[in-house]
Amino acid sequence: MPTTSHRGDRMPDSPIRKLVPLANKAKAAGRKVYHLNIGQPDLPTPARAIDAIKNIDRRILEYSPSEGILSLRQKLVEYYAKFHIDVAVDDIIITTGGSEAVTFAFMSCLDPGDEIIVPEPAYANYEAFAIVAGAEIRSIPASIDEGFSLPPVEEFEKLVTEKTKGFMICNPNNPTGYLYTQAEMNAIRDIVKRHDLFLFSDEVYREFCYTGAPYISAFHLKGIEQNVILIDSVSKRYSECGIRIGALISKNEKVKRNVMKFCQARLSPPLIGQLVAEASIGDNDEYMLYTYNEYVERRKFLIDGLNRIEGVYSPIPMGAFYTVARLPVDDADKFCAWLLSDFDYNNETIFMAPASGFYTTPGHGRDEVRLAYVLQKHDLARALKILEEALKVYPGTQYHNHH
Amino acid sequence: MPTTSHRGDRMPDSPIRKLVPLANKAKAAGRKVYHLNIGQPDLPTPARAIDAIKNIDRRILEYSPSEGILSLRQKLVEYYAKFHIDVAVDDIIITTGGSEAVTFAFMSCLDPGDEIIVPEPAYANYEAFAIVAGAEIRSIPASIDEGFSLPPVEEFEKLVTEKTKGFMICNPNNPTGYLYTQAEMNAIRDIVKRHDLFLFSDEVYREFCYTGAPYISAFHLKGIEQNVILIDSVSKRYSECGIRIGALISKNEKVKRNVMKFCQARLSPPLIGQLVAEASIGDNDEYMLYTYNEYVERRKFLIDGLNRIEGVYSPIPMGAFYTVARLPVDDADKFCAWLLSDFDYNNETIFMAPASGFYTTPGHGRDEVRLAYVLQKHDLARALKILEEALKVYPGTQYHNHH
Repeated sequence: MPTTSHRGDRMPDSPIRKLVPLANKAKAAGRKVYHLNIGQPDLPTPARAIDAIKNIDRRILEYSPSEGILSLRQKLVEYYAKFHIDVAVDDIIITTGGSEAVTFAFMSCLDPGDEIIVPEPAYANYEAFAIVAGAEIRSIPASIDEGFSLPPVEEFEKLVTEKTKGFMICNPNNPTGYLYTQAEMNAIRDIVKRHDLFLFSDEVYREFCYTGAPYISAFHLKGIEQNVILIDSVSKRYSECGIRIGALISKNEKVKRNVMKFCQARLSPPLIGQLVAEASIGDNDEYMLYTYNEYVERRKFLIDGLNRIEGVYSPIPMGAFYTVARLPVDDADKFCAWLLSDFDYNNETIFMAPASGFYTTPGHGRDEVRLAYVLQKHDLARALKILEEALKVYPGTQYHNHH
Repeated sequence: MPTTSHRGDRMPDSPIRKLVPLANKAKAAGRKVYHLNIGQPDLPTPARAIDAIKNIDRRILEYSPSEGILSLRQKLVEYYAKFHIDVAVDDIIITTGGSEAVTFAFMSCLDPGDEIIVPEPAYANYEAFAIVAGAEIRSIPASIDEGFSLPPVEEFEKLVTEKTKGFMICNPNNPTGYLYTQAEMNAIRDIVKRHDLFLFSDEVYREFCYTGAPYISAFHLKGIEQNVILIDSVSKRYSECGIRIGALISKNEKVKRNVMKFCQARLSPPLIGQLVAEASIGDNDEYMLYTYNEYVERRKFLIDGLNRIEGVYSPIPMGAFYTVARLPVDDADKFCAWLLSDFDYNNETIFMAPASGFYTTPGHGRDEVRLAYVLQKHDLARALKILEEALKVYPGTQYHNHH
């Protein structure tokens, strides 16, 4: 039998995915499982987006242009302008989800052996996409005790070597909900400029900033316009993760030219998803306000509830719809598995994401979990109660072990 | 400004794509352009597939499973059984088009420096996907004079080195329409077995075999079941290229496990496309017969017409909806460009694909073009007339230069 590739063997198996069979088993046994583990919003997709496909008027579902449908890209130009992101139609390339945007950005900019600097905890699949491109991630550890703010710039500038080719952020952040400050963004800009790096900026959660602090796009930073590659997706903001429509935005002609070669090789992004995305964008204040208010309330409810449980600590996330919380347990991987395989409270349990999958530094985040507030408040209340009761009886609970 | 990746710089620019601006210019100038250049069928998508989205009954367009929707995979098991391809649901992984299936197959099986053997002319994007994986293509030249049959097995076994990791075929073939014989498939099987290679087999045109000769799937070959990776797509057979739904099929547990890691990193294939694909499959004899008969007629009409033009030669393609024809010209790249930029016949012209993009051996296919018969017969008649008239006046026509 021929052997598979080293690359494929090296691809990470997420700790969340390993728990999915346990969750399925729990459900098969009749237990209700509250899903706090995945960023799949429970809120409805905009009705007019679904109407766009119900009213589709096409005889042939044919290839769309490799760079995406022009009218969708034009609508995105207007959308970004509302956030003072000044880009042209030709700067926007439609991708098959934000995932493909990250992949093509890495493929176009990074060669095997190149390094990128990423604050951790980070979205787990960045590592997967780096492996796809043969690149290595160097992590800046951000700590729950500092509310996941960046360490001083001198600290992470030490990570820059001659192999360093880029800096990657997710802002607002998945998994922490952290929103980078102006000072932090300036520090990133300075490093990017000083060492002539690419700045890959994943800003798919921009609609969800809760504290009044400004959302600072990488494209707001002066003097590095040629270095910025913005990653976007309609998945989270319109609750349409399944349509797989994202975008890669760059003002760098060489980058765009190379990205387009990867786009042309895969022919086109999904046609129907683009129709849905286009119908979702713009003139949708009511929908966005409803969504926003819902997350604001859930966030307050979840974070308050978490911090009321003995030994549990969550910083207050400033954006997105996640929080990373510290639990009084020996090992969050084990605890999350135990919740699914061994525990129930009135025949119900919870599925949380162990934070270990979001750290590349071994051992980091061992007692942390990520919770997505993609459930209604009454379900979050049940989930909090289950967590509290579970911690009382879990064999690895260590109330004394506060950091 | 940071430099882009060598990989991105190396990605090929297809000779077809380079002509697109010329075609657009011709259209802007009011000329009608007949598109024989691209495998976008003009036949309608099955009505019930479009009805499936018109009648969609979902509130949230959410992630589907990374391996694809179960009911679609179950339907594909039945579909393949009709072709005596015996696979289980767990062997089928849904991908974002056949393009992603090839990419994930290469990523999972090939490391940088590995080689795969591919008969040429070949689908141009195989080279792009090989570059993505860092692998190299070694070409077996097949010639128009031999009707694009494979050379004797001893001939291409010479290409096997210690770096050789796989063999890739497209059957029926894009661009030539060639259908591999039982003897050729046995030769491929023997090489694959003797050198323990992967056999990547792209069989997306299986519905379109016209000569009564049998379609032999890679999965029909005994003793190499663990080596075969089948690439499939619904794009061509149901005229729904835009939905981006394909499949990767393997019985090799290690391959499936690695492919799934790439699938999980990109989260899920397009949801709505999967609904369309599922509605398209099975119990569709009338649609498939109509489509088949249409291509049979067009094929006869086009090939007869080509061979009637002085100096033009096309073998009779056995499958798919393409043919590669030889023209009495100095350089098909130049001729195809000239047709778009300098020629018209009653204010009409044609767009053909220069065959150079389908060869990796430099200089091969210099006087060949690929024509896709995705136009109705009366339009094919116009296109043939335009070609005939163009050859009479093109400055690089060389009627004496028959091989």
